[in-house]
Amino acid sequence: MKAVGLIVEYNPFHNGHAFHLQASKEAAGADVVIAVMSGNFLQRGEPALVSKWYRTQMALLNGVDLVFELPYRFAVQKAETFASGAVSILDAAGCEALCFGSESGDLTSFLQTISFLKENQQLFDASIKQHMENGVSYPKAIALSYQGLSGSDQFLNLAKPNNILGFQYMKAILEQNSQLKPLTVARKNADYHDEHFASETIASATSIRKAIFAEEEMHSPNIEQYVPEPTNRLLQEYKQRFGSYHHWENYWDLLQYKLITSSADELKNIYEMEEGLENRLVDAALTSADFKEYMDNIKTKRYTWTRLQRLSVHVLTNAKKTDMKNSIQAEYIRLLGMTQTGKDYLNKMKKHFSLPIISKLSAYKEKEILLDIKAARIYAMAFPKHIRKQMIRQEFNQPPIFIQK
Amino acid sequence: MKAVGLIVEYNPFHNGHAFHLQASKEAAGADVVIAVMSGNFLQRGEPALVSKWYRTQMALLNGVDLVFELPYRFAVQKAETFASGAVSILDAAGCEALCFGSESGDLTSFLQTISFLKENQQLFDASIKQHMENGVSYPKAIALSYQGLSGSDQFLNLAKPNNILGFQYMKAILEQNSQLKPLTVARKNADYHDEHFASETIASATSIRKAIFAEEEMHSPNIEQYVPEPTNRLLQEYKQRFGSYHHWENYWDLLQYKLITSSADELKNIYEMEEGLENRLVDAALTSADFKEYMDNIKTKRYTWTRLQRLSVHVLTNAKKTDMKNSIQAEYIRLLGMTQTGKDYLNKMKKHFSLPIISKLSAYKEKEILLDIKAARIYAMAFPKHIRKQMIRQEFNQPPIFIQK
Repeated sequence: MKAVGLIVEYNPFHNGHAFHLQASKEAAGADVVIAVMSGNFLQRGEPALVSKWYRTQMALLNGVDLVFELPYRFAVQKAETFASGAVSILDAAGCEALCFGSESGDLTSFLQTISFLKENQQLFDASIKQHMENGVSYPKAIALSYQGLSGSDQFLNLAKPNNILGFQYMKAILEQNSQLKPLTVARKNADYHDEHFASETIASATSIRKAIFAEEEMHSPNIEQYVPEPTNRLLQEYKQRFGSYHHWENYWDLLQYKLITSSADELKNIYEMEEGLENRLVDAALTSADFKEYMDNIKTKRYTWTRLQRLSVHVLTNAKKTDMKNSIQAEYIRLLGMTQTGKDYLNKMKKHFSLPIISKLSAYKEKEILLDIKAARIYAMAFPKHIRKQMIRQEFNQPPIFIQK
Repeated sequence: MKAVGLIVEYNPFHNGHAFHLQASKEAAGADVVIAVMSGNFLQRGEPALVSKWYRTQMALLNGVDLVFELPYRFAVQKAETFASGAVSILDAAGCEALCFGSESGDLTSFLQTISFLKENQQLFDASIKQHMENGVSYPKAIALSYQGLSGSDQFLNLAKPNNILGFQYMKAILEQNSQLKPLTVARKNADYHDEHFASETIASATSIRKAIFAEEEMHSPNIEQYVPEPTNRLLQEYKQRFGSYHHWENYWDLLQYKLITSSADELKNIYEMEEGLENRLVDAALTSADFKEYMDNIKTKRYTWTRLQRLSVHVLTNAKKTDMKNSIQAEYIRLLGMTQTGKDYLNKMKKHFSLPIISKLSAYKEKEILLDIKAARIYAMAFPKHIRKQMIRQEFNQPPIFIQK
């Protein structure tokens, strides 16, 4: 059985994801599709719209055969670490290929960029450092340095989020001497961060979330045409069961409380907290009425919005520097769900997996997973009080989701 | 000018307090009444019904001339520490007498008890220890030991909350070699913890709060006959401005979140956390839907309800063992409010005060007061989001309340 790996967040699963999934399966000639998916908190430093269990169902009902959780300490991270963790899991699970979306759909430009940067590593690093000393954010410094050295995006435009991710996947494969064969398919229409609908059927997850939250407030647009039927149905079910989707504003009270009660030393221990930033966050907590106002208050040219959101997630989850080890490979594979095909693949292949596979939390005692458990419990704090305790405990009780198809 | 000191919580100020205030003033022949009042969190480990600023107004409109805040680290404490801190402030502020309520209204039994216990200190301590080893709570162990040694409450019934407080005030005066002259007046009708109305005009604060919360839910009884007009008016104003009074349930989300996110080591550092208790609290946080259920889940014979509530306040405020120094005397006097008489007294006497008096927070830099500031900010978390940030900052902006009369 031949497996292709995808690295996803599915927040929520939409038609563009369905397209990418089918194209990847074909490009790899695969029988099995394995997705490594961020858990309840995402790479851009936000709570997922719906829980990882609902997003797992969406994935399985739309063609994924196995869903593994990308652990918190790789998921809520800059592109480089995110890519490292995800690649290590797909590799450990015996995937033959990794297929990612890109602007061009052509691997050549990625390969050229990587070999160019390898040859110019020192110049590149020095240039990034220089830009950052001038107060430019890290992602922008990368793009500017690459542009400066290679001469106007000669191969790849690293200012595009999808290209950055693809580039980091390629780099991780090389650095880990992974067996994964990189493949890329061109993205359809929507740009990663697009906030507006640009086509009849394909829209970015960002624009879909925007429509969903607008709908929550005003009962206006709908997203049916942009998502497969199971996504639409599961989103409606979620809303009915739990009353609302998850948004940073749902966690504002807790973040504000955490910042107000913690000592400076406690905040300094939080992952990614840089000297002096803790005072800025506390001041904003004391003077802001909601999360949006808080973000506007802490924003500076030096730190990207995304970076400050990720830092805020780490404050919320009390994720400390000592919790977020710097290794580039995962220690375990957490199984969130499978189809019959996925199950067959597991039964046949798991003895060759190079990492332990966890399907029942109670059977796994390593402390690395505690951060994932804690993140799930904190995510559950946004559920209404009367069902919160079940949802908090779900993390231990929930067996992997199985969908027969 | 002759001042009498009272030690109060006024949660809320009721007719029994008014009676005690007048009787104390007469008994001491005083011109000025000084109250040391718990801040936003109280001795029994609960948030006050309304903020210390509103309770200060109630006090001033009902005959108190100066309101000083009993700092958090004395207020949210067992009777002995509570009494020590309060006595040290009244003494430092030049009071000639301290007048407390008691069952009998007679000082003799307090004096006899104290001299009896002085003579039998070792036996008494040994007996308390013995009872506690048998799983009895501390207050009960005191009452049982005293009963056992003196022969059936020979002088004073130490099982009565008011007698315990009075006894601790007497003990603190002796231990601190205080100039305060102890006085006591008999309480009218209501028992400290009474939950039901037992007279036409006098009811315990407990029964008044119970009626207030019942009213919040059912719009039924009212408390007008049990409280002076200013209390009634201020309570109504509070409800209108802020939407609700403060109850532990308003802080449940934050307490649950704090217990879920903290590491075992962080919880072990919390003041009054005993070995193993942290696991009990975390388990209860994971399995309880609200504060009441949580309290039922952590309750054991060994710890009183009050003690566990106090511990929970310390968890909520992140008050650590290192924050709660063990000295028995206050380091400062925080002025919350005054009448013209109180102001005259201050102008005349404050140069003789043996502790610094703080009327503007920005002028005082000692770190002891940080815990009071933090407690006020956390208390403010129960206000609606749109006014919370003003209320959080009120702690710095609010000058002492002045009432001309």
